[in-house]
Amino acid sequence: MSEPVWSVDARTGERRDAVAVAVEATSAEVADACRAADAARAALDAAGIRGRAALLRECASGLEDAADELVEVADAESALGEPRLRGELARTAFQFRLFAEALEEGSWLGVTIDHADASAKPVPRPDLRRMLVPLGVVAVFGASNFPLAFSVPGGDTASALAAGCPVIVKAHPAHPDLSERCARILRASAEKAGLPADVVQIVHGQEAGATLVRDPRVKAVGFTGSVRGGRALFDIARSRPEPIPFYGELGSLNPVVVTPAAAAERAEEIAVGLAGSFTLGVGQFCTKPGLVFVPAGETGDRLVDRMARSVTEVAPGAMLTDGIRAAFRSGLAEREALPGVRVVASGAGGEDRYVSARLLAAPSTVLSDADAAELLLDECFGPVTVVVSYADEAELLSALDRVPGSLTGTVHTGAGADDVAAGAGARLGERVGRVVWNGHPTGVAVTWAQQHGGPYPSSTDAATTSVGTAAMQRFLRPITHQDTPPTLLPDALRDDNPLGLPRRVDGRLEA
Amino acid sequence: MSEPVWSVDARTGERRDAVAVAVEATSAEVADACRAADAARAALDAAGIRGRAALLRECASGLEDAADELVEVADAESALGEPRLRGELARTAFQFRLFAEALEEGSWLGVTIDHADASAKPVPRPDLRRMLVPLGVVAVFGASNFPLAFSVPGGDTASALAAGCPVIVKAHPAHPDLSERCARILRASAEKAGLPADVVQIVHGQEAGATLVRDPRVKAVGFTGSVRGGRALFDIARSRPEPIPFYGELGSLNPVVVTPAAAAERAEEIAVGLAGSFTLGVGQFCTKPGLVFVPAGETGDRLVDRMARSVTEVAPGAMLTDGIRAAFRSGLAEREALPGVRVVASGAGGEDRYVSARLLAAPSTVLSDADAAELLLDECFGPVTVVVSYADEAELLSALDRVPGSLTGTVHTGAGADDVAAGAGARLGERVGRVVWNGHPTGVAVTWAQQHGGPYPSSTDAATTSVGTAAMQRFLRPITHQDTPPTLLPDALRDDNPLGLPRRVDGRLEA
Repeated sequence: MSEPVWSVDARTGERRDAVAVAVEATSAEVADACRAADAARAALDAAGIRGRAALLRECASGLEDAADELVEVADAESALGEPRLRGELARTAFQFRLFAEALEEGSWLGVTIDHADASAKPVPRPDLRRMLVPLGVVAVFGASNFPLAFSVPGGDTASALAAGCPVIVKAHPAHPDLSERCARILRASAEKAGLPADVVQIVHGQEAGATLVRDPRVKAVGFTGSVRGGRALFDIARSRPEPIPFYGELGSLNPVVVTPAAAAERAEEIAVGLAGSFTLGVGQFCTKPGLVFVPAGETGDRLVDRMARSVTEVAPGAMLTDGIRAAFRSGLAEREALPGVRVVASGAGGEDRYVSARLLAAPSTVLSDADAAELLLDECFGPVTVVVSYADEAELLSALDRVPGSLTGTVHTGAGADDVAAGAGARLGERVGRVVWNGHPTGVAVTWAQQHGGPYPSSTDAATTSVGTAAMQRFLRPITHQDTPPTLLPDALRDDNPLGLPRRVDGRLEA
Repeated sequence: MSEPVWSVDARTGERRDAVAVAVEATSAEVADACRAADAARAALDAAGIRGRAALLRECASGLEDAADELVEVADAESALGEPRLRGELARTAFQFRLFAEALEEGSWLGVTIDHADASAKPVPRPDLRRMLVPLGVVAVFGASNFPLAFSVPGGDTASALAAGCPVIVKAHPAHPDLSERCARILRASAEKAGLPADVVQIVHGQEAGATLVRDPRVKAVGFTGSVRGGRALFDIARSRPEPIPFYGELGSLNPVVVTPAAAAERAEEIAVGLAGSFTLGVGQFCTKPGLVFVPAGETGDRLVDRMARSVTEVAPGAMLTDGIRAAFRSGLAEREALPGVRVVASGAGGEDRYVSARLLAAPSTVLSDADAAELLLDECFGPVTVVVSYADEAELLSALDRVPGSLTGTVHTGAGADDVAAGAGARLGERVGRVVWNGHPTGVAVTWAQQHGGPYPSSTDAATTSVGTAAMQRFLRPITHQDTPPTLLPDALRDDNPLGLPRRVDGRLEA
């Protein structure tokens, strides 16, 4: 018997319908999905750059055409609000189109041609031609907090399809109705582009997710979620008879440093911005600043006071799920109970299903206590941040050395020479994927240069990104053709370059 | 008490000296090595492109200057013979210099700059600048079969140093004396280049190797060796609190397909070449062709007969270690005992410490038997290959579908139109990293377009290569700088491009 999957209103906790949205997939159904995805590989590969770019553009249009319906359902299931969700949908559509552009640009194929050279040193070399090919079926685990940007549609799905890999999404239980609707749109988009609908499929259920990661047809996993859930799936992926890459974005603390000069010059601006950043979307961002280093003393105190004022004005918010709310409240209680940690400010409300924002503070010496450090250096998902005051640069740098791997690290610096800035930026660079200067880490632009992934636990593979055009690289592998008869060469590797690809020929890059 | 490490003559099995070459490292010594390597990181990073290119060139010269001594010791410890070892040393020196060139060319940094754009869709975007940075300390496990090209010196060490990562090599017990000598040369080369000697260190001992992989300062592992040993270390690397990438090259079958047309046209040439390839270096190549598909019937039989003739002329050889010889003999016995498998030819000799080459044959229907398939589709390290005859293309393709991931796959094709060739090449492309046409897989040129790595178990990460300039990518991770004050930007990311790097600016590739 398969368990039914219900759509729940995030604000009320009530089922939105008298009938279930879907049922959890059985092992046999997961295997069927994997077989169907595997069977769709050849068509997706044969579609080539042009065919896959068309697919991605159809996906973008399909989502935009259904925007009103999708945003309404997404808002009911996530409580994230219409403006944010409209923005998220626009971002996702933009992302599908950017991957189409990146496909057409062609660098992603990594074409490298070394012609045969009988006089090469130390020995003659054959003709070698290298390019990237799709890995195979990709399993994507949707995140709770970005129902339109890191879920059924989003960076993992778009980049895997761009790379030529069919996708099976394990839908997040927080928004099953939206997931079903999005999947229908993406499948219809595939058919409009002349491809099998099965290049995108979804399954529901936690056990189904684990079964998916074990299926031998699945060749890579994209995941966004908690450290605990992510690590469990990572362990499954890596302990298979044939281990597969697991690209997980788990937990991130996103430390922020305010230098003494910055605090002196721009306390108001930084404080208001920070308060907005850590409470945005009820603090449910993977890039939420969770630890803020401010100078001890008057300038730092002024900044914290100003933050406190902003925090008291933050309206209470409904969180994504009951489980997330419960975890937030217990995480908050644990942190508040730590000796040396004080509650500086609380947002309004905070009853029943709505939580209030919280600003905590502690001296950096608190981090010397192992229990305190374990909690304060661990992500607490929700609208809370901890301000840690440092006495001097040495104390700051030694505290930064203890911060775990994060997606981002931020430095607020003074307008003139700022001795602390360079050191803080360098330390953060050692442990994050993106260093933000004089801004806020929330908001992740989808561009060529973006990096959304950092040392563990923020990512299981710090060498990859889940946002930006480089995200495609996760789902490709190289193959080299040696002395291949010209008639059997893929178009991408032909000497006359019929696809007009950027490539490296005999060591020289040709843009 | 640390165990002594002895240098053993591979031909006689006798200790080469009355005193031990080294002792196995204790846990404390491994930790010390990791600390010293970690401390050397900053200098290696600060050396930049120019400093690291100088280091690599010093390593090349240092090895060449000591060629006579190194080849003599390598030959005593490996029995691989002087000509092969001289070639191997030349290859390694060439490789160090090629990485120096690749460093200077600069594409490896992946510089990508997206300027701020207030009018960007869907939202304004900040200034984002992405580049690759070294991962940290790298542990390298030397292989038994390439004492100069995949050991203390070799692709892993050269590519890690190029990437800016200090290296600690776990020396292979088959050639500890050579390992010590090579390490001294590389350490002296570092000092000549103005760098700390500790950018290269070695440790001995199996336990020390496991300890090394567990050390939190170690951020990646390069390994070449057996499936069993590699998988055990892979499991350690991936089950650490902070998992790290493990780039392992384990076992590879390297299937070869001879099409009917090729067999008809070039039986003699192919047969002689194949016999040479699978017995080269006493069959101790990771790219040794271990499974050869030939057409059933007269043309195929003629080819097998010709191979048999060549095999009988192959001289017996001493293998790298007693353990490898014992594994080869038992692996051979197991395969010979399989119903349907026959011994077509044996090389000369094969007594005591010397083994003889062996040519086995079976019809492809043997692969339908699970026990037989398990053995015949598993690498048998040493001078043996199995010829499998196929009745028609369908039978060939269905057999190829059962072949596990390999480093290489080879197709011998006819001069004219050859229906079987395209299908066989495509099937091999699904499961190997390099497809070789009308040649032999042994011999791996060090170039820009080389790919030495394929689906599991040939590699633990099919998306990477351990040979060729792309090998550097394994030891780097991206970092994006957002809205960074120009004075704090690394030179590589400055608008005026003082290092003259190829880069992508606002989506456009500039070579």
